[in-house]
Amino acid sequence: MNINKNFLELKDSYLFSRIAKKVRDFSAAHPETETIRLGIGDVTLPLVPAVTNAMSRAVSEMGERETFRGYGEEQGYAFLRLAVCGYYAEKGVTLEESEVFIGDGAKSDLGNILDIFSGSNTVMIPDPVYPVYVDTNVMAGRKIIYANGSVENGFLPMPDRRVKADIIYLCSPNNPTGAVYSREQLAEWVAYALENEAVILFDAAYEIFIRGNDLPSSIYQITGAEECAIEFCSLSKTAGFTGVRCGYTVVPHALKRGGAALNKLWLRRQTTKFNGVSYIVQRGAEAVFSEEGLGQIKSGIDYYLENARVITETLNKLGIWFTGGENAPYVWMKCGAPSWDYFDSLLEKTGVVGTPGAGFGANGEGFFRLSAFGKREDVMEAMRRMMLM
Amino acid sequence: MNINKNFLELKDSYLFSRIAKKVRDFSAAHPETETIRLGIGDVTLPLVPAVTNAMSRAVSEMGERETFRGYGEEQGYAFLRLAVCGYYAEKGVTLEESEVFIGDGAKSDLGNILDIFSGSNTVMIPDPVYPVYVDTNVMAGRKIIYANGSVENGFLPMPDRRVKADIIYLCSPNNPTGAVYSREQLAEWVAYALENEAVILFDAAYEIFIRGNDLPSSIYQITGAEECAIEFCSLSKTAGFTGVRCGYTVVPHALKRGGAALNKLWLRRQTTKFNGVSYIVQRGAEAVFSEEGLGQIKSGIDYYLENARVITETLNKLGIWFTGGENAPYVWMKCGAPSWDYFDSLLEKTGVVGTPGAGFGANGEGFFRLSAFGKREDVMEAMRRMMLM
Repeated sequence: MNINKNFLELKDSYLFSRIAKKVRDFSAAHPETETIRLGIGDVTLPLVPAVTNAMSRAVSEMGERETFRGYGEEQGYAFLRLAVCGYYAEKGVTLEESEVFIGDGAKSDLGNILDIFSGSNTVMIPDPVYPVYVDTNVMAGRKIIYANGSVENGFLPMPDRRVKADIIYLCSPNNPTGAVYSREQLAEWVAYALENEAVILFDAAYEIFIRGNDLPSSIYQITGAEECAIEFCSLSKTAGFTGVRCGYTVVPHALKRGGAALNKLWLRRQTTKFNGVSYIVQRGAEAVFSEEGLGQIKSGIDYYLENARVITETLNKLGIWFTGGENAPYVWMKCGAPSWDYFDSLLEKTGVVGTPGAGFGANGEGFFRLSAFGKREDVMEAMRRMMLM
Repeated sequence: MNINKNFLELKDSYLFSRIAKKVRDFSAAHPETETIRLGIGDVTLPLVPAVTNAMSRAVSEMGERETFRGYGEEQGYAFLRLAVCGYYAEKGVTLEESEVFIGDGAKSDLGNILDIFSGSNTVMIPDPVYPVYVDTNVMAGRKIIYANGSVENGFLPMPDRRVKADIIYLCSPNNPTGAVYSREQLAEWVAYALENEAVILFDAAYEIFIRGNDLPSSIYQITGAEECAIEFCSLSKTAGFTGVRCGYTVVPHALKRGGAALNKLWLRRQTTKFNGVSYIVQRGAEAVFSEEGLGQIKSGIDYYLENARVITETLNKLGIWFTGGENAPYVWMKCGAPSWDYFDSLLEKTGVVGTPGAGFGANGEGFFRLSAFGKREDVMEAMRRMMLM
């Protein structure tokens, strides 16, 4: 019996537990100061009525013999896959229903997709980055190289033709930096992937925040992407589904590697190791894509974007360099000190809690992430305190 | 770029699509005969009121800002893990809350657990078997050996000390055979696993059907199992959750291999590649384990067990050898012909649809699975027709 020894190579992440401890200690020492948490990546607005109504109806159906549903197709109900196709059509992207796979969120699918690739592939991951891109590949023993984000490239690293990668992670709008790739920039990545026969794993979890019409909200808006990219999306941030759990993954039929259609491999993976998303949740997700649902979620996104605007307005007044905050719920600010020192100082002086950039990779050192997912009054109070700091 | 070439070794399963085609053809040729499907492994009774009420309340909570919940812990809410601990306590098994992991069903966890083991391990799988045990290991390129079920051992294969395995799958009550291991038999497997430092993956998805007090409904009722077994269970058959999606996996803290606690490895796997089960679903699952819920689901299990009794009564009258049907929702009958020939003949003569045993492995040839998950009137009509056949 051998365990998977790659697990022993994983670094323990103490990022959020370390933050929690520091906040606890601060609150104990300063009971008079109300802390304001702008560190979380979780949503705070409730589900919209279109979604709760649809889920309530589905719960009722499941309680009646005539309308009860057992196993659904592992890749999701057709009604939801068609709704996703409709959502893409609005972006000018034509998908077949069988190119869409319903899953329980982008995190699961981003991890599980690796099953279909060999452990011998080299993986290219931006730095700073959502930590699970790294950890899921360490678990599989893959070689990892990094694409460096920096002030110079606005934390939007571009391909380096001297370097060869097989699997490339891109996330736009980006977590943690809030930076968004332009069409031209994504087209360069697509060209690089096609040249190298690489596959791009495109994390579009924050696509709903894109309001600039010229910015791509799907990699399939770039010609050729259907031959080199898999796209992952989630309703977590789109419609407050972080606790409801539903996402979707697009694997185009045109995407082939080693003579195999990746769509077929992923279908086989999912039918073998997954049993579909809750019917109740799928009905809620379907409602997100209805006219009523899209209208209702828009005001929630507007709310978070206005929070982001309040943050960036303050940073501009303070003359602090940042990315994000437009077309994204995150603001990534230069903090003029090591990330953790700034964290301590901000907490001590203002009671505001953010996320040290160093927690997202080596290139995050010296930067700090503020999230727009809080309540308006908290964001405004936090900014007032930062102005006085 | 290399794909995972092990996927190319997977055999396509045409079992259920082949059955569906044959039924379609039969119905087209014999529109006057109503077919009766005793082939499905899916439940037909709706969710009980305790569950739908709890889920309706949870949906309402998610629609209000004050009670909305975002991300939960990946391993499940404490309220549900504690409810599972309570359920095990009734079986005389003491678990810590941190030994219980909530997942979206046994199929997912049984597949994903393999992430924590090396690809170099030898896997022992009973034959006949739930096909995904085989496929998930083929995907990872593991060597597979089989433990042979037969009429002689009542389709309850026992360990062979001349053979060494690292990972052992056991399922009791068994799918597809309905056979149930005794305490003494499971104790032999536990002893074998401990001797070989193997890990037993114990699939307890049908434990709720066990009504004989002397039969083990958890492997942890066997001394020493906490040092060699992981148990998987699901609410799919327990409470009709096949379309709701919730299960749980128990990894005892005492289970260590290669110097590592498997509980810690699985926790790391789940926190990295999974984001928890829907809050709404977890509230429904919690209600299953309430006094009200357990009372309500009991009558559903009684119903299915009575269906099974009707089937076995008929087979006894017909003098047909079988396993299962007691403490299990499946009846595994000897069909006196190749499985598919019997399938054709049964369909042709009676319109009854079952599942050819050959679909579950080489040792299933010559056998046939009947399921008790149908409606009582259908089961009775099917048995009436088989008596006349």
